[in-house]
Amino acid sequence: MRVGIPGGGQLAQMLIQAAISLDIETVILENSPDSPAGRISRRQVIGDWRNAATLAAFAEQCDVVTLESEFVDEDILRKLEARGVAVYPTASTLAAIQDKLVQKQTFEKAGLPVAAYRAVETPRDVRSVAQEMDWPLLLKARRNGYDGYGNATLHGVEQLAKAWAHLGQNGRQLMVEDYVAFERELAVMIVRGRDGQVRSYPVVETIQRNHICHMVRAPAPISSHTARRARDLAIRAVEAVDGVGAFGVELFMVTKDLILLNEIAPRVHNSGHYTIEACVTSQFENHLRAVLGWPLGATNMITPAAVMINVLGAHHGPPNPDALKAALDVDGANIHLYGKRHVRPGRKMGHVTALAYELSTAEEIARAAVDLVDLRIPEPDG
Amino acid sequence: MRVGIPGGGQLAQMLIQAAISLDIETVILENSPDSPAGRISRRQVIGDWRNAATLAAFAEQCDVVTLESEFVDEDILRKLEARGVAVYPTASTLAAIQDKLVQKQTFEKAGLPVAAYRAVETPRDVRSVAQEMDWPLLLKARRNGYDGYGNATLHGVEQLAKAWAHLGQNGRQLMVEDYVAFERELAVMIVRGRDGQVRSYPVVETIQRNHICHMVRAPAPISSHTARRARDLAIRAVEAVDGVGAFGVELFMVTKDLILLNEIAPRVHNSGHYTIEACVTSQFENHLRAVLGWPLGATNMITPAAVMINVLGAHHGPPNPDALKAALDVDGANIHLYGKRHVRPGRKMGHVTALAYELSTAEEIARAAVDLVDLRIPEPDG
Repeated sequence: MRVGIPGGGQLAQMLIQAAISLDIETVILENSPDSPAGRISRRQVIGDWRNAATLAAFAEQCDVVTLESEFVDEDILRKLEARGVAVYPTASTLAAIQDKLVQKQTFEKAGLPVAAYRAVETPRDVRSVAQEMDWPLLLKARRNGYDGYGNATLHGVEQLAKAWAHLGQNGRQLMVEDYVAFERELAVMIVRGRDGQVRSYPVVETIQRNHICHMVRAPAPISSHTARRARDLAIRAVEAVDGVGAFGVELFMVTKDLILLNEIAPRVHNSGHYTIEACVTSQFENHLRAVLGWPLGATNMITPAAVMINVLGAHHGPPNPDALKAALDVDGANIHLYGKRHVRPGRKMGHVTALAYELSTAEEIARAAVDLVDLRIPEPDG
Repeated sequence: MRVGIPGGGQLAQMLIQAAISLDIETVILENSPDSPAGRISRRQVIGDWRNAATLAAFAEQCDVVTLESEFVDEDILRKLEARGVAVYPTASTLAAIQDKLVQKQTFEKAGLPVAAYRAVETPRDVRSVAQEMDWPLLLKARRNGYDGYGNATLHGVEQLAKAWAHLGQNGRQLMVEDYVAFERELAVMIVRGRDGQVRSYPVVETIQRNHICHMVRAPAPISSHTARRARDLAIRAVEAVDGVGAFGVELFMVTKDLILLNEIAPRVHNSGHYTIEACVTSQFENHLRAVLGWPLGATNMITPAAVMINVLGAHHGPPNPDALKAALDVDGANIHLYGKRHVRPGRKMGHVTALAYELSTAEEIARAAVDLVDLRIPEPDG
């Protein structure tokens, strides 16, 4: 079987690592020949997916096409579907997710609890939402936002003009959401087969820093009652968009009895990287199984606790080739580098997962390793 | 860093899977462009390593060269070393292992217990060994034997002529070993760094069928006292050949108090495949760390028990592309296929590992999955 992925980032890289064990061939479609995933894929098509000839060359090689990013145009997926290629998640699933306003509407229609939201066309609309809901509010780009690029928290009207100018550039459509004062942020990886079979991974806690995922604690330190509610909500969210494949579902735990759906990502997800070491079947393998129509693997943890911490860039420039060496000395730290050639502040360069009997121990180990990763090239002495 | 591997089989494939996570580039040297490892390596050199130009093209791309097979000529490694390429295991380590007679002599010189053995030049020599040690005896090719190709158990003189004719073809050198009636076969993966730092994996039990590894049970169901002896012996064996990298050490447990060294393989080893899922750091990652001079990772198991069973070919022909599907339904079975294009009886096509609280449960799960892998292409219904 050949699985095509438009995009060659770290998610595609980790999908390929899983694909190798099942003798699944991969085809990466990328602009550049030197992407993390393209370098290790059996097949690669270089070019722009908006170019018809490139897309055709890609489609011809694939039995199934799947995504590592939700930023592929719905239209591209429809063109692939029209060529007879199986595409999972489907174009209509993507359409229900890509525009965050439509996503919220879809969940609301399915009876799932979400924070209050409004479409806004002008700053004046935001001010009238504020009269209704009061500050703080979240101003969000409806499309193409990730890792905090694409949203701003407004604590008062004085922050509105600047945030609007920034987020609303080039006529980008925006929306407003009620700011949720949550107790914890939770996430659940859901994997759903072509036949509707669903498996859920344990509910995890995600800790963000500057809107970027910093740490994932698995399982989340919450009651089994709350975990069950979170998991059920996550499954219903994926069913609401008729999702096939792995889905990262982000939730707000407002109180132990009130959980709101935040966002859903139609792909393997940073909050599920811990599953590589900590679960029977990783999110990556299960995603491949799902989109190929194969049976899904068990999702339970094989260890009482796991913590994943992202390795984020803190400067601009190439990475230090010896960045890892000191961190390798930390027993129990599973290190993953993504092979990116350029560091940017906040860019995800890798991650570290540690397993232990307790979350606190796993966190200590992962943190010790991440603290020793030094992406900067040291200044020469003298 | 770039690590070169002459050979593109499943061991190289699994080394590459581990290399990806640490952003280590690999260079595969293979005769055919479609080997399991070559297909997924960032770099590949196609050709025969005995060809000087091919070897030079390979050497130029590598910071370190390592092995997936002990059947590379010692001379080839010396040529690479002469070009200034770091080679681990070194040519002299390989020389001490490749000829099984020299291997035995090396261990004996280091004071390590081995079964009695003799060099033999003619069938008459075997008969005189039999007078000394009595039947049964093991007749062994000194070089290039694996998976039962290269040795024969002789229960009496009547089996000698045929075995000699078969094993001794083309003037191949043979040796004789006393046949050891063991209680169990044990194996230990040892990883040794460039600086002499040593880590040992748990002692496992290996179950052979027709001289081919059938199953590995980790940890071996033996006393901690016996395990300690086995582990110490394995470490001393690797030190005796000044090994750097991962080494598979095979042992005979004759009784709980008598353990003999059987053979050592200067590479990652089938008896260590379970470490991918069951240990903090897999043998593949630790081998890469060792040959690169990096710190070694922790070798302890993260689960009480693990069982690995090989998926062996039983016919001649191409594999069934749907071989896996039914086996994927077995919860808890981690399936690895090697992407080989031809099945042969006894050929290693993949393996399955299962983790559990008890060996018996892990074995049940792994066996259920292996039994469902069907490599034969089904006959069309008539």
